[in-house]
Amino acid sequence: MLQKWRDKCAVFGIWNDPEAARMTYLGLYAQQHRGQESAGIVTLDQGKHLFHKGMGLVGDIFQAEDLERLTGNKAIGHTRYSTAGGSTDLNIQPLTAGLLTGPIAVAHNGNLINAEPVRMELQKGGAIFSGTNDTENLLHLLARNPEKDIIEGLKQAALQMDGAYSFVLLTHDRLIAMRDPLGFRPLVLGKRRNPVQTDGQRSEFAYVVASETCAFDLIGADYLREIQPGEIWWVDAQGEHSEFLPTQEKRLAKCVFEHVYFARPDSRVFGLSVYESRKRMGEILAQESPAEADIVVPVPDSGVPAAIGYSRESGIPFELGIIRNHYIGRTFIQPSQSIRSFGVKIKLNPQMEVLKNKKVVVIDDSLVRGTTSQKIIQLIRQAGAKEVHFRIASPPTTGPCYYGVDTPQKDQLIAAHQSVEKIGKYIGADSLAYLTVEGMMKAVQGSKHEFCAACFDGKYPTPLYSHSENS
Amino acid sequence: MLQKWRDKCAVFGIWNDPEAARMTYLGLYAQQHRGQESAGIVTLDQGKHLFHKGMGLVGDIFQAEDLERLTGNKAIGHTRYSTAGGSTDLNIQPLTAGLLTGPIAVAHNGNLINAEPVRMELQKGGAIFSGTNDTENLLHLLARNPEKDIIEGLKQAALQMDGAYSFVLLTHDRLIAMRDPLGFRPLVLGKRRNPVQTDGQRSEFAYVVASETCAFDLIGADYLREIQPGEIWWVDAQGEHSEFLPTQEKRLAKCVFEHVYFARPDSRVFGLSVYESRKRMGEILAQESPAEADIVVPVPDSGVPAAIGYSRESGIPFELGIIRNHYIGRTFIQPSQSIRSFGVKIKLNPQMEVLKNKKVVVIDDSLVRGTTSQKIIQLIRQAGAKEVHFRIASPPTTGPCYYGVDTPQKDQLIAAHQSVEKIGKYIGADSLAYLTVEGMMKAVQGSKHEFCAACFDGKYPTPLYSHSENS
Amino acid sequence: MLQKWRDKCAVFGIWNDPEAARMTYLGLYAQQHRGQESAGIVTLDQGKHLFHKGMGLVGDIFQAEDLERLTGNKAIGHTRYSTAGGSTDLNIQPLTAGLLTGPIAVAHNGNLINAEPVRMELQKGGAIFSGTNDTENLLHLLARNPEKDIIEGLKQAALQMDGAYSFVLLTHDRLIAMRDPLGFRPLVLGKRRNPVQTDGQRSEFAYVVASETCAFDLIGADYLREIQPGEIWWVDAQGEHSEFLPTQEKRLAKCVFEHVYFARPDSRVFGLSVYESRKRMGEILAQESPAEADIVVPVPDSGVPAAIGYSRESGIPFELGIIRNHYIGRTFIQPSQSIRSFGVKIKLNPQMEVLKNKKVVVIDDSLVRGTTSQKIIQLIRQAGAKEVHFRIASPPTTGPCYYGVDTPQKDQLIAAHQSVEKIGKYIGADSLAYLTVEGMMKAVQGSKHEFCAACFDGKYPTPLYSHSENS
Amino acid sequence: MLQKWRDKCAVFGIWNDPEAARMTYLGLYAQQHRGQESAGIVTLDQGKHLFHKGMGLVGDIFQAEDLERLTGNKAIGHTRYSTAGGSTDLNIQPLTAGLLTGPIAVAHNGNLINAEPVRMELQKGGAIFSGTNDTENLLHLLARNPEKDIIEGLKQAALQMDGAYSFVLLTHDRLIAMRDPLGFRPLVLGKRRNPVQTDGQRSEFAYVVASETCAFDLIGADYLREIQPGEIWWVDAQGEHSEFLPTQEKRLAKCVFEHVYFARPDSRVFGLSVYESRKRMGEILAQESPAEADIVVPVPDSGVPAAIGYSRESGIPFELGIIRNHYIGRTFIQPSQSIRSFGVKIKLNPQMEVLKNKKVVVIDDSLVRGTTSQKIIQLIRQAGAKEVHFRIASPPTTGPCYYGVDTPQKDQLIAAHQSVEKIGKYIGADSLAYLTVEGMMKAVQGSKHEFCAACFDGKYPTPLYSHSENS
Repeated sequence: MLQKWRDKCAVFGIWNDPEAARMTYLGLYAQQHRGQESAGIVTLDQGKHLFHKGMGLVGDIFQAEDLERLTGNKAIGHTRYSTAGGSTDLNIQPLTAGLLTGPIAVAHNGNLINAEPVRMELQKGGAIFSGTNDTENLLHLLARNPEKDIIEGLKQAALQMDGAYSFVLLTHDRLIAMRDPLGFRPLVLGKRRNPVQTDGQRSEFAYVVASETCAFDLIGADYLREIQPGEIWWVDAQGEHSEFLPTQEKRLAKCVFEHVYFARPDSRVFGLSVYESRKRMGEILAQESPAEADIVVPVPDSGVPAAIGYSRESGIPFELGIIRNHYIGRTFIQPSQSIRSFGVKIKLNPQMEVLKNKKVVVIDDSLVRGTTSQKIIQLIRQAGAKEVHFRIASPPTTGPCYYGVDTPQKDQLIAAHQSVEKIGKYIGADSLAYLTVEGMMKAVQGSKHEFCAACFDGKYPTPLYSHSENS
Repeated sequence: MLQKWRDKCAVFGIWNDPEAARMTYLGLYAQQHRGQESAGIVTLDQGKHLFHKGMGLVGDIFQAEDLERLTGNKAIGHTRYSTAGGSTDLNIQPLTAGLLTGPIAVAHNGNLINAEPVRMELQKGGAIFSGTNDTENLLHLLARNPEKDIIEGLKQAALQMDGAYSFVLLTHDRLIAMRDPLGFRPLVLGKRRNPVQTDGQRSEFAYVVASETCAFDLIGADYLREIQPGEIWWVDAQGEHSEFLPTQEKRLAKCVFEHVYFARPDSRVFGLSVYESRKRMGEILAQESPAEADIVVPVPDSGVPAAIGYSRESGIPFELGIIRNHYIGRTFIQPSQSIRSFGVKIKLNPQMEVLKNKKVVVIDDSLVRGTTSQKIIQLIRQAGAKEVHFRIASPPTTGPCYYGVDTPQKDQLIAAHQSVEKIGKYIGADSLAYLTVEGMMKAVQGSKHEFCAACFDGKYPTPLYSHSENS
Repeated sequence: MLQKWRDKCAVFGIWNDPEAARMTYLGLYAQQHRGQESAGIVTLDQGKHLFHKGMGLVGDIFQAEDLERLTGNKAIGHTRYSTAGGSTDLNIQPLTAGLLTGPIAVAHNGNLINAEPVRMELQKGGAIFSGTNDTENLLHLLARNPEKDIIEGLKQAALQMDGAYSFVLLTHDRLIAMRDPLGFRPLVLGKRRNPVQTDGQRSEFAYVVASETCAFDLIGADYLREIQPGEIWWVDAQGEHSEFLPTQEKRLAKCVFEHVYFARPDSRVFGLSVYESRKRMGEILAQESPAEADIVVPVPDSGVPAAIGYSRESGIPFELGIIRNHYIGRTFIQPSQSIRSFGVKIKLNPQMEVLKNKKVVVIDDSLVRGTTSQKIIQLIRQAGAKEVHFRIASPPTTGPCYYGVDTPQKDQLIAAHQSVEKIGKYIGADSLAYLTVEGMMKAVQGSKHEFCAACFDGKYPTPLYSHSENS
Repeated sequence: MLQKWRDKCAVFGIWNDPEAARMTYLGLYAQQHRGQESAGIVTLDQGKHLFHKGMGLVGDIFQAEDLERLTGNKAIGHTRYSTAGGSTDLNIQPLTAGLLTGPIAVAHNGNLINAEPVRMELQKGGAIFSGTNDTENLLHLLARNPEKDIIEGLKQAALQMDGAYSFVLLTHDRLIAMRDPLGFRPLVLGKRRNPVQTDGQRSEFAYVVASETCAFDLIGADYLREIQPGEIWWVDAQGEHSEFLPTQEKRLAKCVFEHVYFARPDSRVFGLSVYESRKRMGEILAQESPAEADIVVPVPDSGVPAAIGYSRESGIPFELGIIRNHYIGRTFIQPSQSIRSFGVKIKLNPQMEVLKNKKVVVIDDSLVRGTTSQKIIQLIRQAGAKEVHFRIASPPTTGPCYYGVDTPQKDQLIAAHQSVEKIGKYIGADSLAYLTVEGMMKAVQGSKHEFCAACFDGKYPTPLYSHSENS
């Protein structure tokens, strides 16, 4: 569907690849869906950091000459969407800093919910902050004990960081990946066979870390495993290492929304194919909320896998009754006079030949304010549909996320205030049904003790502070 | 699929709309798939032409201030892909000129196959050519009889123009649409209800013309009918008019490739839904060339409708086994070291979870050189597929087009030189089959006397001159 | 001074230089003061034209890769300021066209005063005009006799062109320079020794033509002579040639304003140093209109030579009492609240330390509306000057130019409507005096029969048509 | 002359002006000659900082919408040239940081010569550095005592800063200007009458601080006085205040090069008109090193005032024998084949008509490597001069500057290694002479105890550390 939820970051790291900057560029390109506001790459060459950052899309920020300037066979990168930070470039990640021990760079996916109180504490100790980014806290926490080994420093810092963090760090001699004990955000490890040797050393492959496996597919790397919740993994001249934070938790809080909407369907997230999860959501939805209809039509593109599942389970034929225009550019000049439902039409065009005189099941992945759904249903009816049965392949969204997803505020979430019946009337559907939380858990083959579904069920897995938004 | 064929133009025109320039902008935006190299808009205000043109995509060429400068409630526009003309802006359409009777602007979809000899004739008569565009011939042919009525002039000019032309013209007092007698390229007429009155006159609606109906859908216009082959339609202060060229033909030569690949699936072309044609091509393909398989997988996006048809007819489940990445920007920095099949991977990612251990029918709309298909099949096999049965929802492409489609030269069309069996081996498929010409004609519900299928059957509907490429 | 008059073009041509495009670029760069709106270069390589044009300054329009693309050892170029043509690129020169005999390109400095009637005549004969440029007439006049030799064609065309023209043309086999019989605009011929051989042929030098000699200085070419009024000079594979138009005139009409304001002071125009002419204008002004004062202060930069002359003749010390800020960029954001005389101050800063308690003679080259002079005098008084005696090193400007200079309309020329005394009061000077026409003629060492001074004395050397502005 | 020395910064600040951002923009625009690499503006609105920074010229970095976004009636700005910092934006000033007490922004002209050791000390204490800028030290020194009053903090910080600093700071409630005890760099205070009232309060004027008075001239502010060496001046809601650093020195070290080359001639620096200083340098040079000649010719623009002085004292006529082309853009494509002395010619064109057969005194402000002077003399001789007597209006430059001027390294300064006689031969002059140090001091009406002339006499007024370049 139209972009309704925004994940706020993707991270990437690579160790020992002769084209480290280009591979990072590709790794960010493949993960562009996780953040379109800004991006950056930091490489390490002879103990020094080189970087290039900018506002916009990966493909626009980096020119060939920028990547050539980023020499060195180690690199990390980040792409980001953020409401915080405004028009300033200071918050573009990876953040870099000079510590006594050398340069350090960090890329962060997630959100530290106790960023504000820790920041004040640090300022009392003489710290100055250049940006408004929660991630800057980590750098200051590390700087406070400059003589300490960095892995020790990270363990100590973890004691002061609550919330979601999948970090990738690059120091003068190490690539480090670290995931919070509850495992909110994904973080995966892979290997990439080097076509040529690096540094004259015999290094047969490069290590890679990323938020999603689709980054590995593009650069031809093999998926090894997830970085575990609470794990600190690193690689240095001696090889790879792994330790665990002292703050290990029993339960987990993997973000179920990664499977519902964020992650690319061709990624494997928390060990599971996203496309298959979504198809199962559609199948279970068909079981839970069947409809008598002639055709199943997805709201493209995000509703397609669930619609395939719904169609297969119900036996009702699948049709691309709404065509999505992919030639849409980044900017678009609106007509000043009103064209009905214009904002939706510029992307989605329901087809009269398919919809006319049909009873239609429309499948969407989720529903935020209801305004877009309302327009889609209007357009489908204008195209001649007799009945429109709206089915949402996730439960009603009733609360915001504080762990790194850009959700609308609670008062804008229609399901936080309205019954399903009223929502159905508001959007003009002949019937409306959502997937249940249980159905969703079944689809991701997990339990409520492994997944965070707070935006659906209100059960936030951590205490909440004042909600500073970030990363 | 990746963009393998390029149609070379879209045209648009509007008469009497208070937002003529913006509607034209939207009309071009919706037809961007027909030409991504350059675009232009000409408006008419108080007898004078205003225009803005540029290289690139519609959304990049026009800024809000450009559209505001283009005052007037009449306009035409053009978007174009062309191999001719090189780095010069002189060929960007609409072309404009000053005749004795006033300004004239023309937008052209199609190709005049006798452009060269007519051009030389005109130069002998003292004509100077500013560009290298076949369309410029029309302007000179009109200028030779400056005192004559423009409609008469067009009829006379038509006697000297062989080939394909769907013209939209804007003079100081008329909007004109004109289609060659064989009807190669589409051209449709519609009406748009004006939300506000124009010029103080009572004009309840605006007339619109376009190459495809998807342009009407976006601006909320109603489709009326096709401009007929050989018809000159125009609107002026007195209302609309229609005449026919004296050169009427019995047979027609509507381009079947519009249904196979070019047109947007949500357009109605030659009176027929493109999506439905493609689905029928898939269905007939399933009848003609069945395969024993577990799943039907389209090469997205252009193979999707035929794959739905194939799946429905064969009963084999439809799966999005290859995910297309739509976050691809316009430019892309290649890695300098080799990544296998990189050029395909950046757009298409086959999914291991879907394909593993499966017998797969892969559906594509057409096949040019075979190199991309080869890479796709490699990736599908790497993802674990047991068998790959390739099915093409059109016949083997054996010859170039001279009527306005940008085809590779004959020596690059693999089917011009190789048997189906050899092509199948080359691309590495377990089996390969194409739709027959008869099957294709059935799918578009037409006969060989109505459609041009020269690129498939070599039967060119006109004599061929030296093949100057254009428009 | 602030740019008050705009000359409308510079031309350049080069024949047989291994770096023809770069030399043309430099030749335009050196002549940038003659036109800052657009520029273009056309080269000739193997009988074909290559070109690059754009809006803006020469240094912005051409990138290194553009010049590399412009291969060939023959080239012409043009830089232009124009009020005509509006936002369209169609009028950017050199104009190019395809004639039966091959490609032709033309660059024009001057203005054809009978452009309109000739254009209508041509249109009646079937000509179409792509732009609104008077120069296009020449191309059509040549195209009317396509079989004729181009030199003959030019002679015939000259019979239909009244007004000012210094043309440089590049055909498939010749570089041609041609100047109107009255010799309004300058055009000079030079030679440039080639550091390397071209084409394997023994060509020891390249021919160059330009509007001003400063273009020769930059590229290290030697000045040979002026192209004579009424001369057609050309060079081809056989060498150089010269003929004269049949329409030779007895009297001449060289533009005196070139010496007053337009030309660079380091150019030699009509065989005379511009710097020396301006100094003499200052000297004669001092004789004609002395002033009792402590210091002579120029309005920089254009008033400097005349101020040196005035100072030397009068014995009053020369002081840079007003400093010009040369770091001014092209655009400038105005403060929204008023700063007194801001528009002048951003460029000119009078110095209190120099001006305080002084009687000051201020020298400017000319005076248009008087508003800027008024502000300058205010600033000088604020800086503490006791008396301000304004002296203009040219006569009162009373009429517009129709021969290629961009003058304000008559109603904006203060001297067309006010006595010198009243102007003096309006600008707030203690005294005001202009140079006489006789003094000016003495300074350029010529007579009224050789120079056009129509903007000062109203004696237009040709009949006037409806005044189409151009080139 | 061509830009041979680069001053490295200009600062600006304004308190209580309704157009604070625009005035700062103008203040930087007027001081653009002091730094062309990057610029930034920070405003204060309701206790919060807003900023915009960028690489390039002031006129390119700021668009009207940027200035509109920078609300608030307090602002500081900075423009900078720097060899340090490379391609990163992190060093663009004003630097901003979040302290416990609120936001702080600082703009710095000068160079802290002990930046490196202090930086290491701070890192040991847990500080992280985002850039490579010496100015960042000040922020960390202030952050170390977060509870302390900022003025106290600045006094303490001053104890740890050796070298040159003219700081302008903007906190949440104060505009502060602070100059090092030796007074290396200029810093001036002014008042600007407000055309409209601010904040509803009765504030009749705005306070302004700047590096040079030319910034005041442009915005219509009145010069009040210099900020004194060792002074901390600030303004807050209660009005203006002044205190002195405890580290007061007896002697001073005002940079004499500001008068020789850096400052704009229309500025008043250290209480003295720069234009008048330069004229006096020329006069004294004429007394010290007369020449028998026909004309005095400046190397424009920077040699002009001294040439006027030399001419007046010697009685030899002043002539603009070399014309400077001010239409030079920022970039310039070099010809690949050699044009003799091209790099000089693109800006300077000696005039044959003025120089032919003349004995010429050429006046330049200073001489670095001698290569440019050599080319100028070649060009002058080519233009026909009989004799060339080169006179430099400053002493031989023998050492680099460590206090904020971008000087070439010692081995590139020809006078550090060659006698005047040998330099004269190298540049090809008939005679060469420099101004003496005593003559220069006389011209600036000061003594060696007030001015730093270390680049001329090697007497550095502070101990030298490892020479980290900055600011």
